[in-house]
Amino acid sequence: MGIVVQKYGGSSLADADAIKRVARRIVDVKKAGHDVVVAVSAMGDTTDDLEDLANGVSPLPPAREMDMLLTAGERISMALVAMAISDLGYTARSFTGSQAGVITDSVHGKAKIIDVTPGRITQAIGEGHIVIVAGFQGVSADTKEITTLGRGGTDTTAVALAAALEADVCEIYTDVDGVFTADPRIVPSARKLSKVSYEEMLELAACGAKILHLRCVEYGRRYGIPIHVRSSFSQLEGTWVVNDPQLSPGPAGPSEGDTMEQPIIAGVAHDRSEAKITVVGVPDKVGEAARIFEALADAQINLDMIVQNISAAATSLTDISFTLPRSDGQVAMTALARIQAEVGYDKLLYDDQIGKVSLIGAGMRSHPGITSKFFAALASAGVNIGMISTSEIRISVVVDESAVDDAVRATHTAFDLDADEVEAVVYGGTGR
Amino acid sequence: MGIVVQKYGGSSLADADAIKRVARRIVDVKKAGHDVVVAVSAMGDTTDDLEDLANGVSPLPPAREMDMLLTAGERISMALVAMAISDLGYTARSFTGSQAGVITDSVHGKAKIIDVTPGRITQAIGEGHIVIVAGFQGVSADTKEITTLGRGGTDTTAVALAAALEADVCEIYTDVDGVFTADPRIVPSARKLSKVSYEEMLELAACGAKILHLRCVEYGRRYGIPIHVRSSFSQLEGTWVVNDPQLSPGPAGPSEGDTMEQPIIAGVAHDRSEAKITVVGVPDKVGEAARIFEALADAQINLDMIVQNISAAATSLTDISFTLPRSDGQVAMTALARIQAEVGYDKLLYDDQIGKVSLIGAGMRSHPGITSKFFAALASAGVNIGMISTSEIRISVVVDESAVDDAVRATHTAFDLDADEVEAVVYGGTGR
Repeated sequence: MGIVVQKYGGSSLADADAIKRVARRIVDVKKAGHDVVVAVSAMGDTTDDLEDLANGVSPLPPAREMDMLLTAGERISMALVAMAISDLGYTARSFTGSQAGVITDSVHGKAKIIDVTPGRITQAIGEGHIVIVAGFQGVSADTKEITTLGRGGTDTTAVALAAALEADVCEIYTDVDGVFTADPRIVPSARKLSKVSYEEMLELAACGAKILHLRCVEYGRRYGIPIHVRSSFSQLEGTWVVNDPQLSPGPAGPSEGDTMEQPIIAGVAHDRSEAKITVVGVPDKVGEAARIFEALADAQINLDMIVQNISAAATSLTDISFTLPRSDGQVAMTALARIQAEVGYDKLLYDDQIGKVSLIGAGMRSHPGITSKFFAALASAGVNIGMISTSEIRISVVVDESAVDDAVRATHTAFDLDADEVEAVVYGGTGR
Repeated sequence: MGIVVQKYGGSSLADADAIKRVARRIVDVKKAGHDVVVAVSAMGDTTDDLEDLANGVSPLPPAREMDMLLTAGERISMALVAMAISDLGYTARSFTGSQAGVITDSVHGKAKIIDVTPGRITQAIGEGHIVIVAGFQGVSADTKEITTLGRGGTDTTAVALAAALEADVCEIYTDVDGVFTADPRIVPSARKLSKVSYEEMLELAACGAKILHLRCVEYGRRYGIPIHVRSSFSQLEGTWVVNDPQLSPGPAGPSEGDTMEQPIIAGVAHDRSEAKITVVGVPDKVGEAARIFEALADAQINLDMIVQNISAAATSLTDISFTLPRSDGQVAMTALARIQAEVGYDKLLYDDQIGKVSLIGAGMRSHPGITSKFFAALASAGVNIGMISTSEIRISVVVDESAVDDAVRATHTAFDLDADEVEAVVYGGTGR
């Protein structure tokens, strides 16, 4: 049989009992004849606890040392999982990201995986061991420093291992039953998707669905790894993230054949983590906008939606608005204030009382009228639209933060996504 | 100026405030113009907490995974110390044992350092950084597995780094003011030694003084590294462990010149961690004793004192008694029971209600009468002697466990070791 890669998040590893339960799951797969490689996050709140320790000794800890500190979390959980497996009569070997050959760039705190050289893993598999790998971490190619991949990074570790090991499947165990058509905490009638395409999942992740790390999905798509998102608290089938059989003939996992059932809309995502900055009164001439976005890029800020109003003819001035992570708000405002004299804009406006609601579905490519139906639903719910952005399979709007729940619910209903009965169960917090 | 190596134990790193205090000490040495390399233990009770976690998932965790788990403790403390130093405006780089080039054999849980290849440390020093190294851990030469050195191992890490870096001094920071003539908790009038020879310190450590790890002292003696044992809670001079200038003309640290003050007795040590096994009725013929000790060696048991009684002429049977760590008692009894038929001994006796009291001093080589004075002191205190063992600079006796305190106090007084006033301060627990 082939290799199965599994990932368990912090909420699945909260305490000794949870770890023993995870160990039994892992051993069951081994008993069924598969080789098993497991990526683990830190236990429960360990990462937060370590961050608190760091804040206790330094208000601005160096990123290198922060990575050294946080990687202790997975080291603890992987050793405990290996011990629990050993207690069941099977042998396990735990490996740090560095030992497992997870090679990254050298950006501490949000490193990207650039290669996986799993020599020690394949050797341990060959010797009959179950392999446990510390998620979320790696070692930089050039400086040989320990790095971390950022929150959610263990998802990416798992799928990168699956790709390097040519695994049959990458199972992402979490505290919900799969990917839902909307956040069940806002829409109790949200339905679990049995299947979603990589493209849709990418848009869902980028638009605020926290169930899968964006880079994990990118990695899965690039290497064609079927990703099975499911609950570590039940034996239910979860959601398969696979190639869309309508679009590409590549490996599609277990969902081939149900092409006819492909829905138009995969789901409604929302995001309350962004803020909006408006640069008011920018001289409407060549190069001014470029200077603004250059300053933001220099400050390492990722922008999301960007809107430029048409210049008012009388003044030749324009307004430029964009959204960005709230956590980058202060840095962006400072960077923009520095170039005010140079660019000659009038003033800056900052608004972090916003939310983004996104409608996502590969089917909308071939179905006209989706946009108008979406906007009509928002209007009938009394939701005012601030900014609009679209891709081939997504429509996003910025609304008042207080209107997000109403907007999500109205949209979910308008597109007939509501289930007949409530099926979503949310078990706990979200790991990394 | 030269390189100063420091070691801070867990009680010196108990919380954020303690870590900040340690960081200021380290920076002070850097400010004085020295390069500084620091070996740290895990914070406070971290090691115990991690062991509890392990026991929660498995009654008998594999040693490899136990090492993987426990090494997270120093990883956390070293990163926090580096952060606290950074907060003071200096740069620090933390390194794991593996990164620091601490190469060991592959005996998990009690590995021995076989080499130190400190390339990354010297590079970081060259770049002006303060270097923080995780104590207690290394990487095995052949299997590349993470290993730990056993309790107290961070002392050894520190002195091994000092040797490899040709440091001027290895400072061991702990929670007492230095090495005392006896345990101040038993003898409040014990005096701090300003100087003690490697040989005496080896005997003290081997006989139960927990202030320094035995292998640390061995390492220091072999490479002639002056070891300064002192408190991290005060600025007092502690105890220098150096070459005995009476015996060898090697580097002697700051204590050269006070040869005349060399006391006859360095101190009185005690140990309550041993048990005694007596093999009763062993046939007194060639090879029987060898068979017994072979069985114990096969079981990886280190014996301490061994006594064989004169054979009773009538029976040609003899009794063999020995002491060993209580933690090995069960294994030893099992190993001996297995060879009863083969050896033909009568029965086994096990006694863990014993204690060992040792009188140590390089000066006793040239002073006859020490033994009789020691035994007279014990007799006047009403202490019965069970077993006796001697070296050139040590006399040890086994007594009832309940008589240990009386024996230590009587001996301390008999050899004029009592100070005029109490000077010992014990600040907390003992780290590793």
